[in-house]
Amino acid sequence: MSHPPDTTSSPASSATKRAVVLLSGGLDSATVLAIAQRDGFECTCLSFDYGQRHRHELTAAANLARAMHIADHRTIKLDLRAFGASALTADIDVPKGRSDSDMTCGIPITYVPARNLIMLAVATACAESLGSDDIYIGVNAVDYSGYPDCRPEFVNAFAAAANLATRAGATGKHLEIHTPIIKMSKAEIITAGTKLGVNYAMTHSCYDPISDPSSAFVALACGQCDSCQIRRKGFADAGIPDPTPYTDRP
Amino acid sequence: MSHPPDTTSSPASSATKRAVVLLSGGLDSATVLAIAQRDGFECTCLSFDYGQRHRHELTAAANLARAMHIADHRTIKLDLRAFGASALTADIDVPKGRSDSDMTCGIPITYVPARNLIMLAVATACAESLGSDDIYIGVNAVDYSGYPDCRPEFVNAFAAAANLATRAGATGKHLEIHTPIIKMSKAEIITAGTKLGVNYAMTHSCYDPISDPSSAFVALACGQCDSCQIRRKGFADAGIPDPTPYTDRP
Repeated sequence: MSHPPDTTSSPASSATKRAVVLLSGGLDSATVLAIAQRDGFECTCLSFDYGQRHRHELTAAANLARAMHIADHRTIKLDLRAFGASALTADIDVPKGRSDSDMTCGIPITYVPARNLIMLAVATACAESLGSDDIYIGVNAVDYSGYPDCRPEFVNAFAAAANLATRAGATGKHLEIHTPIIKMSKAEIITAGTKLGVNYAMTHSCYDPISDPSSAFVALACGQCDSCQIRRKGFADAGIPDPTPYTDRP
Repeated sequence: MSHPPDTTSSPASSATKRAVVLLSGGLDSATVLAIAQRDGFECTCLSFDYGQRHRHELTAAANLARAMHIADHRTIKLDLRAFGASALTADIDVPKGRSDSDMTCGIPITYVPARNLIMLAVATACAESLGSDDIYIGVNAVDYSGYPDCRPEFVNAFAAAANLATRAGATGKHLEIHTPIIKMSKAEIITAGTKLGVNYAMTHSCYDPISDPSSAFVALACGQCDSCQIRRKGFADAGIPDPTPYTDRP
């Protein structure tokens, strides 16, 4: 875990409310961070180094945090590779496009076991230690990859458990899990973020990127994986130019 | 994270059911492991190196796992010290005995924010990757330290969230969180574990231990912290000799 700056170890002052924002470095979480800031929160951002093959997103998260004036960005190391069985962490090829053979009961092979459950649990610990009652997460149940832990039912159940797990329950405080983009299409997310000034060129979505030291971007996106395809269609549907450096861009 | 042996990366065979057991190295979790084995489970044990000051418990956990023939014991590194504010992880003295000044809204200063929530979330990821439907945790709501995340309401809420977070919900499987000692007194736990052959001399409970290289034990127990006092009383109430090496033993 990187050392947070001194400013962050004390609870939020009464002047500003503090929120914990899960920031992966992708398009969705960057938009959610902008929304949390618009809502008036001073934000502590959490990123996870969980052994993901698309580690470029961690660089993207750091760049975004800096550009969006986040004084407290923490990267939590927690190696999920031992729990393998996902194309995002294990030695399994990331599928191009989507086909039924890549799915188990409607869940794609890029699903990482219980990832959002773990990240929200750590965010809960962080929020409690900061005296914050607000967590933001960029789960999306519309243009998403079919992960079970992106559904509103899961988020609601988690919030109930988190409130029972912590001091919140004993003190009458209530921890809220904000999911501002959960019902938005990818095009709506991109439109909203663009209005809030999100620089999507700094975000990273590709599951199978190619490093390009000569590029100003973090990495080139494959353009073909599930995540790239959803992103491309989102920009097209929104009628907003897609700044992503795809390797297969004509 | 330590490398698990090869035998553990594949799902449990049809011959044996596999459970994931949270093993802290303390009295409660050692008893729960013995109960899971009695229930017929092949057990994968998880311990957490979260920056606790009583790191001796990790050595105790490793010794217990070996003595109890656990082929798959994993120690997960996740530094919770950045979320401080607990006497178990931050630079705050562990109180001796218990007084109201050490409590916040009935919750003691040794409470670590959302610890059981995080550990259960990681156990859920582990269980899902192993194809296991069973997690055992040694939470106890009777002779315990007043932590909010030891209550049955929390465990039930967590189970609901975990089932929605994972493939379980999509496949019709059901993940069960076993809490076999949640309603037992410390004396009842010790009596049950003794019948199952648990060697309590190998367990570690003290929050503020003293290393003793000349001792056969992992560490000397202070005898005065909340955890030591609950342990001592448990053995006394059970009428079973307490094998713990307390520094203040007459």
